[in-house]
Amino acid sequence: MTIYKFQTAEHIVAGREVVDNINEHLTLLNLPIKHALLITQPALVAAGAVEKVEKALEAVGITVDLTTDVEPEPTLENIERVFSETVGVKDYDVLIGLGGGSILDTTKLLSVLKTNDTALENLLGTDLVEKAGLPTILIPTTSGTGAEVTPNAIVTLPEQELKIGVVSRYLLPNLVLIDPTLTTGLPKPITAATGMDAFTHALESYISNKANPISDMFALESIRLITANIVTAYQNGADLDAREKMLIGSMYGGMALTAAGTAAVHAMAYPLGGKYKIAHGVANSMLLPHVTQFNMDAMVDRLACVAGPMGIDTKNLSSEEAAQAVVDKIKELTTVLEIPQDLREYGVEEESIESMAVAALEVKRLMDNNPKTLDKEDVKSIYRKLLV
Amino acid sequence: MTIYKFQTAEHIVAGREVVDNINEHLTLLNLPIKHALLITQPALVAAGAVEKVEKALEAVGITVDLTTDVEPEPTLENIERVFSETVGVKDYDVLIGLGGGSILDTTKLLSVLKTNDTALENLLGTDLVEKAGLPTILIPTTSGTGAEVTPNAIVTLPEQELKIGVVSRYLLPNLVLIDPTLTTGLPKPITAATGMDAFTHALESYISNKANPISDMFALESIRLITANIVTAYQNGADLDAREKMLIGSMYGGMALTAAGTAAVHAMAYPLGGKYKIAHGVANSMLLPHVTQFNMDAMVDRLACVAGPMGIDTKNLSSEEAAQAVVDKIKELTTVLEIPQDLREYGVEEESIESMAVAALEVKRLMDNNPKTLDKEDVKSIYRKLLV
Repeated sequence: MTIYKFQTAEHIVAGREVVDNINEHLTLLNLPIKHALLITQPALVAAGAVEKVEKALEAVGITVDLTTDVEPEPTLENIERVFSETVGVKDYDVLIGLGGGSILDTTKLLSVLKTNDTALENLLGTDLVEKAGLPTILIPTTSGTGAEVTPNAIVTLPEQELKIGVVSRYLLPNLVLIDPTLTTGLPKPITAATGMDAFTHALESYISNKANPISDMFALESIRLITANIVTAYQNGADLDAREKMLIGSMYGGMALTAAGTAAVHAMAYPLGGKYKIAHGVANSMLLPHVTQFNMDAMVDRLACVAGPMGIDTKNLSSEEAAQAVVDKIKELTTVLEIPQDLREYGVEEESIESMAVAALEVKRLMDNNPKTLDKEDVKSIYRKLLV
Repeated sequence: MTIYKFQTAEHIVAGREVVDNINEHLTLLNLPIKHALLITQPALVAAGAVEKVEKALEAVGITVDLTTDVEPEPTLENIERVFSETVGVKDYDVLIGLGGGSILDTTKLLSVLKTNDTALENLLGTDLVEKAGLPTILIPTTSGTGAEVTPNAIVTLPEQELKIGVVSRYLLPNLVLIDPTLTTGLPKPITAATGMDAFTHALESYISNKANPISDMFALESIRLITANIVTAYQNGADLDAREKMLIGSMYGGMALTAAGTAAVHAMAYPLGGKYKIAHGVANSMLLPHVTQFNMDAMVDRLACVAGPMGIDTKNLSSEEAAQAVVDKIKELTTVLEIPQDLREYGVEEESIESMAVAALEVKRLMDNNPKTLDKEDVKSIYRKLLV
C-alpha cells in the first residue's frame, strides 16, 4: 500500500511581465495589504527588478521596506539577524521574496519566525513549525531551485560544517509569480548550474524510492522542458521563450521533489555546501552525471523512461541502451554548459574525501530515497571522480 | 502577453485505503476537530464506505453527523434545504463530502454558505464569495468530475431550466483523499459516463483558447491515463490499478479545466442537464465525439498532439491523419463503453433543438473558449446527430 501526497503554493500566476502588475495579483490573497517587506539581493536592485516591484506596489498605496542583507546560502545567524532587524521589530502584512533559492527560503523562514514564538534552531527538522506564518509571495529569479513551491528551507550551520533543512507545510507560499522577464539577465554560469540543479530535482524525484504517479508527471515534464531549453537559455539568455520554459520546468522540479524527495546527489552535495561553500546548484550539477552513472544498473527501466522526454530517439534501443543514452546526454549537457568538474578549485583535497563521505551518509533522509545503496567506498569513489 | 494561473486543493493524499486512515491525514489540517458533518449518498451507505469513514473518525473521538439528502444534480432549493437542516443550525469543525460531483459541489457550497451571510442565489457567478468557508475534505467516489480540485460548484435552477456555476477560490478544499478502493463498486454505465466526462475535461482544456503550459501538462497526462485505463475499469471494475489511474486521471482533468476552462461540449451539455435532467457526465460524453469532429479542422495540430498520449502510433501519419485518428478513437471508446447516443431516450425531440441551441449559445463563458466559433445552425446540427 503506497500513499503519496501533493501540496503546493496556494496560487501560481505565470506569464511574461506578471510582476509589472503584481498589485492585480495581490487581490488573490484577499487581505488588506498596507505594508510589505521585500526580501531581495543587491544584483536585482542593480538590474532594476526591485524598482519594478516597488513601483507597482506603491501605485496602489502599499509601503515597501527593503532588505538585501540575506547572504547566499545563509547561515542560521544571518537569518536571525535579518529577522531581528526587520520582521522581528516591525509589522508587515506580507513578505515578498524576490530572488534565488536563498532569498526564497529565507522569506519562508522569516514568515514563520514571526508567528512561532521560538528560535530558528528549534525549527530545524521536519514538521516542527506549529503555526502558519505571515502571508508570503515568492518570485523566483533563477531556474532554479524550485524553492517557490517546496515546503523546505535550507539553513547553513558553519560551526558544524552542515546544511540542514526546515521542512513544514507552513513554508509553502500564498502566491508565486513566475515571470521570465526577470531571468533574462542571469549570468551564464548561474543559468547552467541552477538549470542543471532543477534537472537534478526532477531526475532524483523520478528515480526516488518514493516516486509516485503525481511526482512522476511533474518530474518527466520538468525533464522535458529543461532538456529542450537549457542550452538555448544558456547560449542566448534573452530568449524569453526558453527562459519561460526553464522557469516552469524548474517549478515542476520543485513540485516533483516535494512529492517524492531527492536522493544521493543531494545528500552528497550537502557537505560540499556546508564546508566548502559550493553553491547548491553547482554542487548538484557537478555530482549528477557521476551519481547517475553509479545508479544506472539499479534503475535501467526507470532511466530508460527518461530518454523520450529528453528527446532521445529510443527506436531500436534496448532498455540498457536507452538508460545509457540518458547518462551520456547528461554528461554531454555537463560539457556544453561548462559545469565545473574539479572540486580542487573549491579547496577539496584527497584528504577531505573521508570526512565528506561520512557527512554525506549521515543525510539518511535522502540516501534512503536512492534506488541503489551507497556504502562509504561508493561515496568516496564518486567524489574522487571530481578530483581531476 | 499570456498570463495563466494555477490553484488547487491545499493537500492531496492518494493511495489504496487512505480512507481507512482518514484520522491520520486529518492532522494535515492542524485544526482541533471534534464534530464533523459527512455529506454523502445512500448508495455509499449501502456499500459500506460511509461506515468505514465514520469508524475511523469515531476512533479518534470525532462525532459524525450524516446527511444523505443531497439530490443528484441538486437544485438551489435542495442545497438550501440541506443547509438549513445541517450546517445552518449546528456547528461543525469540518465538512466531509464523500461521493460524486453533486456531493462534492454541495459540500463546497455548504462550507461557504456557513461563513458568508447571504443566500445561495447571490453567490451564483464568478468570484462573488467573499469569505473562506468551513474546512472541507473531499473524497471522490467516481472518476469523475474532478470536482475535488475545482473552484466550481454547479447548481440546477429548474424554473429557468438552467444549470449555473458558483466559481470561487474559496470552494477549493483543504484536503482531498483519493482512494481507488471506493470506486471498485461503481456500476458500469457510471464508470463509462464519468470516465468520458473526465476525458472531456482534459480534451476541452487542451483545445481551449485559454490553454497554457500548466493546463496542457495536466490535460495530456489525464488523457493518457484515462485512455489507457477506462476500458479495463469498465470491463473489470475490481481492477484496482485501473481504478487508481482513472481517479488520478480524473483529478488531473479537474486541474486542467481549473487552469484553462472547458468549451463547447460543456456549453451544449448545460441545457441537457437543466431541462432534460441528463446527468452531467452522460451529456458530456454523448456530445464529445460530435463536437470534436466539428472542431477538428480548426485545431488539427493541437488534436494531433493528443494522439501520442492516446496510445495512437503516429509514425507515418500527417497531422490531419493523426487528428482524425484521435476523433476516431474517441468514437471507438464511445461505442465500446456503450455511451448513450440517442437523446430521444431522455425526451428530447426535434422541436426541442431550437431552444436548446439558444440556451447553449448563452453559455458564453465556455463557448468563448472553443477554438472554432459555433453559430446556431452548427449547434443544432450537432444536437441532431444525437437524435437517431
